[in-house]
Amino acid sequence: MDADERLQRYAELAVRVGANVQPGQPVGIWALVEHAPVARAVASEAYRAGARSVHVQYVDRYVRRASIEYGPEEELGKTSQHVIDWIASFAETNTAFIQLTGDPNPNVFNGLDPTRIGLSEAMDYRRVWVSHVATRAVNWTIVSAPTEGWSRTVFGEPDLERLWGAVATATRLDQPDPVAAWNEHVARLKARAAGLNERRFDAIRFRGPGTDLTIGLLPGSRFLCATFETRAGLEHLPNVPTEEVFTSPDWHRAEGHVRSTYPLAVGAVVVNDLEVRFEGGRIVDATASSGLEVVEKQLATDDQARFLGEVALVDGTSAVKRTGLVFQDTLFDENATCHIAFGNGLPMCVEGADGKLGDELLELGVNASGAHTDFMIGGSEVEVDGLTASGEAVAIIRDDAWQLAA
Amino acid sequence: MDADERLQRYAELAVRVGANVQPGQPVGIWALVEHAPVARAVASEAYRAGARSVHVQYVDRYVRRASIEYGPEEELGKTSQHVIDWIASFAETNTAFIQLTGDPNPNVFNGLDPTRIGLSEAMDYRRVWVSHVATRAVNWTIVSAPTEGWSRTVFGEPDLERLWGAVATATRLDQPDPVAAWNEHVARLKARAAGLNERRFDAIRFRGPGTDLTIGLLPGSRFLCATFETRAGLEHLPNVPTEEVFTSPDWHRAEGHVRSTYPLAVGAVVVNDLEVRFEGGRIVDATASSGLEVVEKQLATDDQARFLGEVALVDGTSAVKRTGLVFQDTLFDENATCHIAFGNGLPMCVEGADGKLGDELLELGVNASGAHTDFMIGGSEVEVDGLTASGEAVAIIRDDAWQLAA
Repeated sequence: MDADERLQRYAELAVRVGANVQPGQPVGIWALVEHAPVARAVASEAYRAGARSVHVQYVDRYVRRASIEYGPEEELGKTSQHVIDWIASFAETNTAFIQLTGDPNPNVFNGLDPTRIGLSEAMDYRRVWVSHVATRAVNWTIVSAPTEGWSRTVFGEPDLERLWGAVATATRLDQPDPVAAWNEHVARLKARAAGLNERRFDAIRFRGPGTDLTIGLLPGSRFLCATFETRAGLEHLPNVPTEEVFTSPDWHRAEGHVRSTYPLAVGAVVVNDLEVRFEGGRIVDATASSGLEVVEKQLATDDQARFLGEVALVDGTSAVKRTGLVFQDTLFDENATCHIAFGNGLPMCVEGADGKLGDELLELGVNASGAHTDFMIGGSEVEVDGLTASGEAVAIIRDDAWQLAA
Repeated sequence: MDADERLQRYAELAVRVGANVQPGQPVGIWALVEHAPVARAVASEAYRAGARSVHVQYVDRYVRRASIEYGPEEELGKTSQHVIDWIASFAETNTAFIQLTGDPNPNVFNGLDPTRIGLSEAMDYRRVWVSHVATRAVNWTIVSAPTEGWSRTVFGEPDLERLWGAVATATRLDQPDPVAAWNEHVARLKARAAGLNERRFDAIRFRGPGTDLTIGLLPGSRFLCATFETRAGLEHLPNVPTEEVFTSPDWHRAEGHVRSTYPLAVGAVVVNDLEVRFEGGRIVDATASSGLEVVEKQLATDDQARFLGEVALVDGTSAVKRTGLVFQDTLFDENATCHIAFGNGLPMCVEGADGKLGDELLELGVNASGAHTDFMIGGSEVEVDGLTASGEAVAIIRDDAWQLAA
């Protein structure tokens, strides 16, 4: 498979499997300027899939850098109103949305005032976007755009071809029929979720070096995976790749300590050796060998940021794990192994919570916060058990292999 | 001067002399993805000049290519509504606007259906923009962004450094104090315009190989140059470089034939050897050795597209001319020599017409059209005369040198 064919197949995956673009839909693509080669291939494939129109909204972080360096403070983090209006229009215009990720330069804000960098994080358009996700108004997906800059982060030297190879492995592009491979994979994940949901576990327990953490589930917690469905009934795959089955835990119930097993990239900062202790659901202590300040910033978002919003299970068959790489990109790294997230919960994972907001969710046991930060806690040395209401422990993962029958 | 310093000075020229960005203004930048290095420098300089915010709206012609290749015909040439709304907001938000030009790849639409390429020319946002120009609502400028692709067009081989050198010459960046050099140059052009306006010529006549064209002026036609003034009184320099003195002729009066003396780049198509014949102000015949179809498309924009909107005089002292190059970019090539434009007229050049629109302009003799296409008709073999109302011919340009005293 040559590079052009690989890019073409990758675009097919984004458009036909990921966002599941339907004939006649407008398509919005959100990309960094550096992502242009992938954005163009995706745009082209969207038209081939019958898109009525395709608009790529390019974002330039060097312009943001200039705003941090020279712009007035009160304007930092404000997105141009026309871009916000565009995102807000997606539900009404039935626009499919494809976001490209993959950091071409984690050093882009080097040397700038950290407070001003923080202020420049645009929350305004994200709020609008999150409301589409919460109301399931839009078919969407996030896929990565390999760049030479990102390859430098992953390998310590520029090697775009090698990064493409790894992304191809992680996204099953290396399979003879990637679309068929994805259909099989999604079916397998759905069987795992069904198996977990049958057991109606009361809690999930992680044990390993530096880790002994028990996370309480809600009676209504349901494990989901892979595909979402819009309220109009259109299935789409919000993350390519995806390897996780995940749910929203009871935010009151987390006890013990956990050691992160992967570096965690938050914006341009890498957090190493994160260790966190929970009491009564709350993070009461966090340490790290580097980057702790960004974790603390996230934990300070609001009162509920210190409580869990997600627990996700991934075993060693993960195609991301098979690459053996740390991508320093959450889209990939969270799919390499089990992870948890502090901050906002996932209402669609809890019976009776879908469509609810804020305090209503908290009353139902689903966390609600402006933060949502995933970090990786699984691996071959970490055992995962499901605990029944009567206290019985059932093996879910051992030696990085899934144990629970569907 | 190293490359960084040159880029920095160039950005200063665009921001401080060109658009004349004022403290507190939002700034909009319109750029191709390939223009990112220049767009970033200009954005940065705009912030340094006190811009409240800077938004770069990147355009990707490869996405347009995909729309031509695969998109539905009825959507070709439609710009996303949010982008049109953004442009429409400029007057209300007091946004300064900087457009980057310079074609990084004239072959981008190669192999596509010419009819569909024509349909994909977006007129919708231009109509909105032209109304800002007509009402002098916005301070704006057009500057070029040198790219390797454009250098290939100019030199037949990629040589970005050489193109930067030529652009530096053409824009007086090679002067010890470019801003001072621009002030002197603008004063010289203003003296030429004053000299022409004193004579109150009834017509301008061009004579040379393949050319004998007489263009009637209005009693109120005034030659302008270099700087525009917004209705709020802010001076700005809409084109960097600019070498022309220009006015809006009487659209009813053009007689004779004219041979283009430069290739003309329209979008991605180059028109060679254009020859045009006028009767009663109207283009009744147009021929070319290549690219005629895009001229014909422009001429078909509306009923008034076949009438003249501009006549502009440039002599051999032009800094663009001094480069000895054909840039295949109107911003440069129209400033190398005399040119005329069919389509929309320039109300600010005609007494009593400023601020008027459409039929009102036509009644005053100022053309109004959705088209405005410049093409070059001057050179060392072309003599330019001013004709007085009594029929006397006064030499304006001979041997490519300005003759008329101020």
